[in-house]
Amino acid sequence: MAEKLVGACIIGQSGGPTSVINASAYGAITAALEAEEITQVLGADHGITGVLGDKLYDMGKEDPQELAYLKNTPSSELGSCRYKLADPEKDDTDYKRILEVFKKHNVRYFFYNGGNDSMDTCDKISRFMSKSGWACRVMGIPKTIDNDLWGTDHCPGFASAAKYIATSAMEVSKDGRVYPTGQVTIMEIMGRHAGWLAASAALATHFGAGPDLVYLPELDFDKEAFLDDVERIYKEKGTCFVAVSEGLHYADGTFVSEAKTSATDGFGHAQLGGLASRLCEMVKERTGAKVRPIELSLLQRCGAHLASKTDVEEAELAGRVAVQSAVAGETGKMVAFERAADEKGNYVCKTVLLPLTSVANAEKKVPLEWITPEHNFVTKDFIDYVLPLIQGQPERPTECSMPRYAKLKKVQA
Amino acid sequence: MAEKLVGACIIGQSGGPTSVINASAYGAITAALEAEEITQVLGADHGITGVLGDKLYDMGKEDPQELAYLKNTPSSELGSCRYKLADPEKDDTDYKRILEVFKKHNVRYFFYNGGNDSMDTCDKISRFMSKSGWACRVMGIPKTIDNDLWGTDHCPGFASAAKYIATSAMEVSKDGRVYPTGQVTIMEIMGRHAGWLAASAALATHFGAGPDLVYLPELDFDKEAFLDDVERIYKEKGTCFVAVSEGLHYADGTFVSEAKTSATDGFGHAQLGGLASRLCEMVKERTGAKVRPIELSLLQRCGAHLASKTDVEEAELAGRVAVQSAVAGETGKMVAFERAADEKGNYVCKTVLLPLTSVANAEKKVPLEWITPEHNFVTKDFIDYVLPLIQGQPERPTECSMPRYAKLKKVQA
Repeated sequence: MAEKLVGACIIGQSGGPTSVINASAYGAITAALEAEEITQVLGADHGITGVLGDKLYDMGKEDPQELAYLKNTPSSELGSCRYKLADPEKDDTDYKRILEVFKKHNVRYFFYNGGNDSMDTCDKISRFMSKSGWACRVMGIPKTIDNDLWGTDHCPGFASAAKYIATSAMEVSKDGRVYPTGQVTIMEIMGRHAGWLAASAALATHFGAGPDLVYLPELDFDKEAFLDDVERIYKEKGTCFVAVSEGLHYADGTFVSEAKTSATDGFGHAQLGGLASRLCEMVKERTGAKVRPIELSLLQRCGAHLASKTDVEEAELAGRVAVQSAVAGETGKMVAFERAADEKGNYVCKTVLLPLTSVANAEKKVPLEWITPEHNFVTKDFIDYVLPLIQGQPERPTECSMPRYAKLKKVQA
Repeated sequence: MAEKLVGACIIGQSGGPTSVINASAYGAITAALEAEEITQVLGADHGITGVLGDKLYDMGKEDPQELAYLKNTPSSELGSCRYKLADPEKDDTDYKRILEVFKKHNVRYFFYNGGNDSMDTCDKISRFMSKSGWACRVMGIPKTIDNDLWGTDHCPGFASAAKYIATSAMEVSKDGRVYPTGQVTIMEIMGRHAGWLAASAALATHFGAGPDLVYLPELDFDKEAFLDDVERIYKEKGTCFVAVSEGLHYADGTFVSEAKTSATDGFGHAQLGGLASRLCEMVKERTGAKVRPIELSLLQRCGAHLASKTDVEEAELAGRVAVQSAVAGETGKMVAFERAADEKGNYVCKTVLLPLTSVANAEKKVPLEWITPEHNFVTKDFIDYVLPLIQGQPERPTECSMPRYAKLKKVQA
């Protein structure tokens, strides 16, 4: 049994927001408020920058009902940041400041909710505290719609984005087939290096109306093969619907969205617009088809109205387990998920703890064997992987049929 | 009492799809199947083009459960078209063909579901049948997300799109404020000549998180005033969120999205990308702020998962009333909505019939007095107008948490 450690805790949110990062905050905050070892529960304003600036909110002063609304409030309610801590060997200014703030508030627990970079921040703080002799337990709570965190079966935030993407793809697929003269629709989906989100559009196809083609950044983009695929389907069906990861790149590593092109501008000026617009121009040039680029943009990461209940519950669980594990003596770990099955074979999500050092800065990509040999779709393995994660519609509080989000008082500590 | 007219009916869908046009089809089809005067219920493939091509489906052969799924299936399940009939005085080829098909199937009722142009089609067919002596009753069923049909308080399809836009705006608003270094987000919303949809983004602001500025095409776009507004808010709050109608135009009538600009290309080449991208470039040049254009594109018109229950029910009602009125003897009319109140003052929707001639090709715009004196937002009058329309969440059939849409057999008649 670990030594009992009594003091305040800080909970911070970092990186790009998701539909369920506040559900993790809710899990962590409520578990911390319940833990007798934790004397004060502090929320960091804009992640680690709030710690550095000693801008901390006393979560114990919030109305419990408003905290409960966090479960269905998208984006990062405490504010997020993309601040990168220096290598402590080279510059420990920030770390000394963090320690100062920790000492001021007697912070003995630090919970950080984010993706790859945030786990790196978490790991560095954990090691610095350890070295400095300030007893403080540090735990990472996973979060990323990109689903690219190493070591966990999946990440909180991914499934809700996947469900948003798949549902939207299904709707757009219906819309794109409405006129007798068809069109080529290209939907651009987030995912710079990993194609989990773009692959999720294939769920729509699995349920009867979705993209004909899906291209992921796990493989080099072959422009000619892409145009051949689109042309073939467009000729065959009169329409073609394509889902692409924003991170598509040529064999030399150049992002397709940034590559120079002469498609519409003979003077060599860089084209404006994102990947979908680029690809649409290529398709138009090749086929003459009417084209329609659609960029899901921020909508896909904040579309909480289509959140997966499974995801919301697992996100809350991750926050709760982080706090409970730290109180029980763990430190320097990230909560991760393992996929299991109950006696009936149904999906069950188990939590495990992974060393932060093993998680930080590693990336998990879609297995190549889950991409079809033609490199233009995903296999049933991917569908089987993602389907259990998007299940269920959470209870969604509304006010006059509009979403009712948490309204925090944010009382400075 | 009108003479009893016995024969088949045709139901056609036309113009851009909506989330609830199939709910109108459902209302019309079921009412027609129930009507003893109607001997066969035919669905036209791709609207009037299906009539011209004698491509008609026997709706009586569909599974009633699948027909019921139409209520929650976005887009036009029978297919739509944008075919414009010639002026019958100049060229009556199409009309003679339509009459031929009507005679072949003994069509005595024609129901056409669409917007401005479709009501014009409806009107022309009605007058031609009348002139030709073929007894046939013709009724228009309103539909348009743009809400610009003249003579009706609102149009089926508008409220669901408005709800999608308002909810998405609320989510994006939360997302856009997440980092300590803010950004300017510009959301481009459909509406070429009428600003009803862009104005609906203001609902999000009314409920606590939405755009700071809203610009409608009812007024000329003043670029300097726009940049001043954005700069002021960005300096004040650190972020700025703007909702714009795609139809914004300068005083000379040029669409902002199509105007030549030298903002980023000194060679005078037309910029690619839509209005939001254009405006973002202007804002970036003026303020140096990080900018994010978001185009809701097709998503806003097919987002049935966020449909308004009120809208779904009213759309079904419009279809049903069209059929019942025709059977009772009406012809050459469009079903329209009147806003009323029950004894408690609650919103009630009543149907009335308007002559097609009065509706065809007229446009209803947002009243200028509902736009603020600064021309950058809408007044409470607009909120009061739209709020009752977006109420309620329809029961949404799902299969493994994905939407379950109608699967019609489409048996050729």
